[in-house]
Amino acid sequence: MIVEKPASAEPATSAYLDYAAATPLDPEVLQAMTPYLTGRFYNPSAPYALARAVRADVEAARAAVARCIGARPGNVTFTAGATEANNLAFAATGGHVVTDAIEHESVLACAEARPHAIVGVGPDGRVDPEDVLSAVTPATQLVSVSLANGEIGCVQPVRELSRMMAQLREARLAAGDLTPLYLHVDASQAASCLTVDVGSIGCDLLTLSAAKIGGPKQVGLLWASDDVALRPLVLGGGQEGGLRSGTENVAGIIGFARALELACARRREESRRLASLRGRLERGLLAEFPWAQVSGPKKAKFRLPGLLHVSFPGLEARRLVIGLEREGVSVGTGSACAASKMRVSHVLRAIGMPEEAAAGSLRMTLGRPTTEAEVDYAVAAVTRVVRAEMSRLGISDGQAAANAARIMGGGRQ
Amino acid sequence: MIVEKPASAEPATSAYLDYAAATPLDPEVLQAMTPYLTGRFYNPSAPYALARAVRADVEAARAAVARCIGARPGNVTFTAGATEANNLAFAATGGHVVTDAIEHESVLACAEARPHAIVGVGPDGRVDPEDVLSAVTPATQLVSVSLANGEIGCVQPVRELSRMMAQLREARLAAGDLTPLYLHVDASQAASCLTVDVGSIGCDLLTLSAAKIGGPKQVGLLWASDDVALRPLVLGGGQEGGLRSGTENVAGIIGFARALELACARRREESRRLASLRGRLERGLLAEFPWAQVSGPKKAKFRLPGLLHVSFPGLEARRLVIGLEREGVSVGTGSACAASKMRVSHVLRAIGMPEEAAAGSLRMTLGRPTTEAEVDYAVAAVTRVVRAEMSRLGISDGQAAANAARIMGGGRQ
Repeated sequence: MIVEKPASAEPATSAYLDYAAATPLDPEVLQAMTPYLTGRFYNPSAPYALARAVRADVEAARAAVARCIGARPGNVTFTAGATEANNLAFAATGGHVVTDAIEHESVLACAEARPHAIVGVGPDGRVDPEDVLSAVTPATQLVSVSLANGEIGCVQPVRELSRMMAQLREARLAAGDLTPLYLHVDASQAASCLTVDVGSIGCDLLTLSAAKIGGPKQVGLLWASDDVALRPLVLGGGQEGGLRSGTENVAGIIGFARALELACARRREESRRLASLRGRLERGLLAEFPWAQVSGPKKAKFRLPGLLHVSFPGLEARRLVIGLEREGVSVGTGSACAASKMRVSHVLRAIGMPEEAAAGSLRMTLGRPTTEAEVDYAVAAVTRVVRAEMSRLGISDGQAAANAARIMGGGRQ
Repeated sequence: MIVEKPASAEPATSAYLDYAAATPLDPEVLQAMTPYLTGRFYNPSAPYALARAVRADVEAARAAVARCIGARPGNVTFTAGATEANNLAFAATGGHVVTDAIEHESVLACAEARPHAIVGVGPDGRVDPEDVLSAVTPATQLVSVSLANGEIGCVQPVRELSRMMAQLREARLAAGDLTPLYLHVDASQAASCLTVDVGSIGCDLLTLSAAKIGGPKQVGLLWASDDVALRPLVLGGGQEGGLRSGTENVAGIIGFARALELACARRREESRRLASLRGRLERGLLAEFPWAQVSGPKKAKFRLPGLLHVSFPGLEARRLVIGLEREGVSVGTGSACAASKMRVSHVLRAIGMPEEAAAGSLRMTLGRPTTEAEVDYAVAAVTRVVRAEMSRLGISDGQAAANAARIMGGGRQ
């Protein structure tokens, strides 16, 4: 039942580099879940001792995740995934919402279903808190900005945004205006590497996903401060304090709690390790292809450590993905949702990337099991595949560089 | 990882009799899920071969459940549980809805959130299709009646209801009225023992739960006919045909499909086996306590085979549950949701059971792992615990019978 990890001494012969799309269950997470997939299968709402013990385990898991985010257990609602948590966050308010152009599809879809403003982002994907504040109207009740973007890895200035929103909230109150103004932060892609302490982030609502941190799929949570009155999307037996009815996904909740505990315990070391591996990957690829374009912020502190977004302007990512899968290397081309529809990424459009460059973009994300040997294998494999494509198209290194300059310069033939 | 099952030759020393609240994962289901909890963890929407293979597995699971319910795969939406599926069914229509008084909390809560009529049921819990039809108004768009009730085990006349609704629909059309009229059937509690073929049931919408048939918790499905335009509750990346966004619970879906396949393959034999075990349990208890009251229909064909609802009027179920848990016997006191809140069951109120009898009610439900030895052990344990309660209260057999007659007769002191 253990996901095998190549010993780092041996050369790798494959590399999975799409941890932003899916992570394997951490062996410790699976171990924590296994009793609930076997003997401890009882319904936490049933009245006898065996079931009450499972209820206690679910509440212990809630307390554990609450500790990881610096919150009280009663403010944590377990959901069937981050997408549902984002929807639940939006359902908590009426009125106008403000978000930015590179949010996850679930945030954008919720925003688009009601009065909204979508603010642009800089060429590095970062949102300017001033822009967000400018988009807030007297009717705005919710602002939603993710902690870090899952496609280009930019870390957003949510703390600064939070401080500015606090001033606006005070101004509203001073004017006798009781319209709430909440900050929702989707931290799904960030939890392995950045703090998700709600006090430190300064948010009113926080979304987390188990599936991005070595936990099970379709398990997530929404934390909401005492000020926020959540409203259920799913009605029924009244589980999760009436906010998410349906028999609890006990094994999933237990696994999520363990995954988050592990993520918090390993975060500092793992951030450094992944940043170092990402640097190795980036240097390796840019040494071969100096004309390749790396997206996202330049400053390390604004970059998600385990993510490298690289574009090969003039080449087709779809062909590169197929070439790489023959080499045993799995990479993304953007968010998995959009990838399956082969649409141009809304994130790349928002940062102003020319379509021809966007079409040649790969997202490589590293995770807990990633080794140096895998990174080295990936550099070699990407090199072979990109060179094969260049050769197929009859492009020299010089021509590739010229093409890239032309495409990135916005010039079209 | 295998749930142990006592060899039937040995006498049992415990008995789990709450399969309507939760079922252990069938070992074959867990086996089917395990690859997706380990190596096959890929995001089905990712573009590389390993992920496309997982997508194909999810779609094969959809095809498998579609076969089990006699439907096309494209009409099956996987949800995070039956409660969510019921909510999704209700969201498909506006207007007025008609349901009955003993539906699951999720159905009643959805009905109560909009214009609705709730029809009563007979003393055996069965709904009269004529009553349902009488409650339909020109604005009614949805009728929701479960296939079988999870608390008292009555099987509802949904086929008859379906035929009568078809006539009403034709009458509407003949009058040029295009208001839809759909029949939603929650078959969550029925799938182990009754056919869930949508053509045979004659419904427009069908809810199923994995957790009630040896599959994982918080996995369900909603089937909808081509006529029904579903509307998503959760917006985002567009998974499940846009009806249930969020990365798929791959292991859960695979497990659900296997569980439903097993349920369908075993249904005929398992229905007979459970009915026989239930008969043994019922006879055993009534032989000791002829004054105990069995609820639900008398006719075998109107009874869910594995369910026995028995009331000991004058005793307190809460005390019996605690006594039984000391004996290693786990029984329910009604639906798990209500049980945890220690409310009087809305189902028992609806069938007109006096409150004092309702308060002394146990729901015993048998499942695939239940053995004859467990049933015999349960009979002996219930006998010991009920006798201990009678002794504590100083009640003889004759007095217990007189109390029961008084309570059931509706007389109060």
